[in-house]
Amino acid sequence: MAKQDNKLSTKSYRGVRDFYPEDQFIQRYIFEHMEQICELFGYEEYSSSILESAELYRGKTSEEIVNEQTYTFTDRGEREVTLRPEVTPSFARMIAARYREIPFPARWYTIANCFRYERPQRGRLREHWQLNADIVGAEGAAADAEIIAIAHGVMRSLGADERNFEIHVSDRRILDAMYGVVGIEKAMYPDITRLLDRRDKIKDFEKQLSEKLGSSAQATKLVKELARTTSTAYLEELRGQLELLGVGNMVVDTKITRGFDYYTGMVFEVFDTDPANRRAMFGGGRYDNLLSLFGVDSIPAVGFAMGDVTARDFLETHNLLPKYAPSTELMLLIVEADASTHAMRLAQELRREDVTVSVNFSGKRVGDQIRQADKMKVPFIIAIGTKERESGRYTVKNISTGAEITLPADRIAEHLFSSLG
Amino acid sequence: MAKQDNKLSTKSYRGVRDFYPEDQFIQRYIFEHMEQICELFGYEEYSSSILESAELYRGKTSEEIVNEQTYTFTDRGEREVTLRPEVTPSFARMIAARYREIPFPARWYTIANCFRYERPQRGRLREHWQLNADIVGAEGAAADAEIIAIAHGVMRSLGADERNFEIHVSDRRILDAMYGVVGIEKAMYPDITRLLDRRDKIKDFEKQLSEKLGSSAQATKLVKELARTTSTAYLEELRGQLELLGVGNMVVDTKITRGFDYYTGMVFEVFDTDPANRRAMFGGGRYDNLLSLFGVDSIPAVGFAMGDVTARDFLETHNLLPKYAPSTELMLLIVEADASTHAMRLAQELRREDVTVSVNFSGKRVGDQIRQADKMKVPFIIAIGTKERESGRYTVKNISTGAEITLPADRIAEHLFSSLG
Repeated sequence: MAKQDNKLSTKSYRGVRDFYPEDQFIQRYIFEHMEQICELFGYEEYSSSILESAELYRGKTSEEIVNEQTYTFTDRGEREVTLRPEVTPSFARMIAARYREIPFPARWYTIANCFRYERPQRGRLREHWQLNADIVGAEGAAADAEIIAIAHGVMRSLGADERNFEIHVSDRRILDAMYGVVGIEKAMYPDITRLLDRRDKIKDFEKQLSEKLGSSAQATKLVKELARTTSTAYLEELRGQLELLGVGNMVVDTKITRGFDYYTGMVFEVFDTDPANRRAMFGGGRYDNLLSLFGVDSIPAVGFAMGDVTARDFLETHNLLPKYAPSTELMLLIVEADASTHAMRLAQELRREDVTVSVNFSGKRVGDQIRQADKMKVPFIIAIGTKERESGRYTVKNISTGAEITLPADRIAEHLFSSLG
Repeated sequence: MAKQDNKLSTKSYRGVRDFYPEDQFIQRYIFEHMEQICELFGYEEYSSSILESAELYRGKTSEEIVNEQTYTFTDRGEREVTLRPEVTPSFARMIAARYREIPFPARWYTIANCFRYERPQRGRLREHWQLNADIVGAEGAAADAEIIAIAHGVMRSLGADERNFEIHVSDRRILDAMYGVVGIEKAMYPDITRLLDRRDKIKDFEKQLSEKLGSSAQATKLVKELARTTSTAYLEELRGQLELLGVGNMVVDTKITRGFDYYTGMVFEVFDTDPANRRAMFGGGRYDNLLSLFGVDSIPAVGFAMGDVTARDFLETHNLLPKYAPSTELMLLIVEADASTHAMRLAQELRREDVTVSVNFSGKRVGDQIRQADKMKVPFIIAIGTKERESGRYTVKNISTGAEITLPADRIAEHLFSSLG
C-alpha cells in the first residue's frame, strides 16, 4: 500500500464530473423524461461505443477540428481512435451498415456521452451526455415537425411551459439561396456558414466576413439579405405541422445556421427565454446526404441532440430541479446486536414485496442510526429490538412527519406504498 | 461530400459493439434487473467518468498492466489519462473525496462501461458494461453476505434457478495463512496470488509456481495445503448469513483468489453450472485497505462487479433471453396522403394518454405499411382513411392474432393497455 505522503488524488480528471447519488438522481430524472418522450413518439433505443475510428469524423469535417478539438490517439494496433465528439456519425454508420434490412422510416434514440477537448467552462465540459433522436427515411415538414415536437415534449415534460423557451427555426436552403444572390462560390458555403453560426460570439463579425469573402461589398450585401429574410412557404408549412403536434412556440430566425457541415434543410435551436440564461441550449436539423458518405444511397434524415449540462442549467434557472429522494424507502435500525438476524430476515421478506430496504449495519446507537436515515433522506424507519422480535409487530415511522403506525410484517409494504403514493 | 470510392467504413472500432434496437432491448433488460435488485437492497445509484488519471491505477497495480492492458494516452495538457478498466478505484476515489460527509455504511451501485486493451475473444471485449455494487463502512459476514445476495438476486431475477449457477467463496486470509505455513515472504504474496488466480488457464502451473518461489519444495507444499483446506469458521458464519437472505448455493472453494491485489478478506466467483459454459462468470470480494491509498482512514469495503457480456452469454446458454418487443405499441397507417394530418392529431391525442405511437411516413401502400409494422414487431396498427376521418371510429388490429376491434379515439388507450397486460 502507498504511504500517506504518496497518496492518490481524490479529484476527478479535469473537465469531467463525478455523480454522487444526489447528482445521479437529477441525471436519472432528465434521462427518464427524455426516454419517455422519445418512446411516446415511437422511437426505439440503440447505442454504440464511445470509441470510433478517427476516420469517421475526418470524412465530414476538417482534420484540424479532429486533431485539436477531439480526443484522438493511436492505439497499439496503429489505429487512430477518437472518443466520439457527437453521435450523428455513429448513428449514420449503423444505419448504413444495415440499410437493406432496416424498415424506413426508422425512428431511433440514444442517450450517450460525448467528449470534446475544450477548456472547461459553464455548459461546456470535456464529457457530457446527450439525447440524440433521429428519423431516417422520411422527407418533408411532417418529419421535421416530429423531431422539433420531441425536443418540445422533453422540455414540457421537465416542467417548462411555452413561455420559458422558444424554438428558433431556419433552413439551410435559405442560406444557400442568399449565397447565390450575393454571388458566393459554392466551395465557400461551409466556411461562411460556420462563421455565421458563431456570429453572436464574434465582435468584428462583418470584418471577418469581408476577409473570408475577399469582398466587403459581398459581406455588406449578405448581412443585408440576412436581415431582410422573414419566412418561407416551407417554414410556414412546418409551423402548421407543429401546431398539429401541440407546439406553439416556433419562431422563424434566419440567424440560426448550426455549426455542422452536414445539414441540408431545416435547422433549429431551442432558446431559454429567461434574461439570466438567454441563449441557444441545443438544436438539430435535417441532413439528407450524410448516409451517402458510407457508399449507400442518399437517405433523408433529421434529428436533434440535447445535452444534460444545458438541461440541468435550464432546470436550475427556472427552479424546476426535482427534490432528491433516494431509491431506499425504508431503513431497519438495529436496537441491540442480536436483532440483526431478525432484521435481515424481515428485510428479505419485504424485498419480496418490492420494498426497497436497507439494514443499518453501523453498530451505532439508535439515535445515530435515525440521524443517518434522516441525512440520507430515507423516508421510513423501523427500529428492531426485543419487543418487535417477540411480538412480530413493527412500528413504521415517517421521519419527516413523525407519524407512526404499528403493523404486522405482511402489512408494511402496503402501508409504505400508499404513503409514498 | 466524399466520393463513392473514398467511402467510410460502416464497421465499428475493433472489439466494441453496436447495439441495434434488438440488442439494446437485451441490454436494457439486463440493466433494469440489476438496478431493481440493487435498489431492493437499499443501494443508491452513482456514476463517474470513463476518463481517469492514469495515476489512479498505478497506485495499486504494476506499471506494466497500466501500460499494456489499458487504454492510456497523454492529453494535450501532458496529463496521462486512462479509460477506466474497472470501477472500484473510481468508487474508492469518490468515497475518499467526501468521506467526512458520507454516512457509513454507504451502499452504492453503478452500471458503467469499462475498457481493456485485449485481443477480442468470447466474453472478453475491449469495451464492456458492468454492474458494480459496493458497501463501504461495514465489516463482517453480514455485509459480505449482502453483496453475495445481490449477485444471487440479479441471477434469480434474470430467470436463473439455483441449479443453474453456484457461488464459489473463499477468503484471502486463508491464502495468507497458507503462505505463512509454507514460509513465503510477504512481498511475494501479490505475485503468488495472481498466479493462483490464473491456475486453471496455465498448463505447467506447478512449474511456474516453483520458478516464482525459487523452491520446488515450497511449491509442492503450497499445492498440498491448497488441496487440504476445506472451510473456516468465518465461511460457515457467512453461509448462515446467506441462508437468512435466501441464498442456498454457496460452495466453499479455496481455489478462488481473484486477480486484483486489493482484496483482503472474502472473495467469491459465480460459476455457470451448465457443462457447455462451466466457468467463472463474475465475482467480487472484500477490500479493506483501498481507501487508505487516498490518505483517508482505512474504511472496510466489499463489493462485486457483473459484466453484460457474461450475463448475456449465460442467458443464451440457458435459453433465458427475453423476446424482443419494441417500445412502440401502435403504428398509425396512412391510407391516403391527406389522412396524414388526421393521423398526426390522433397520435398526439393518444400520446397524452401514454400510448407509444408512431405514424407511418413511408408513403407506401397499406400492405407494405402493415409488413413494416410486422417486421418491426409493433403489436397494434390502425389504418387511417376517409372512413375513419368521417366516423371518428378506428379499427385497432392486433397484428399477431389478427383480432380487430372498432373504437372511438378515447377508448383506444384503455384497449391497448388491457391487451398488453
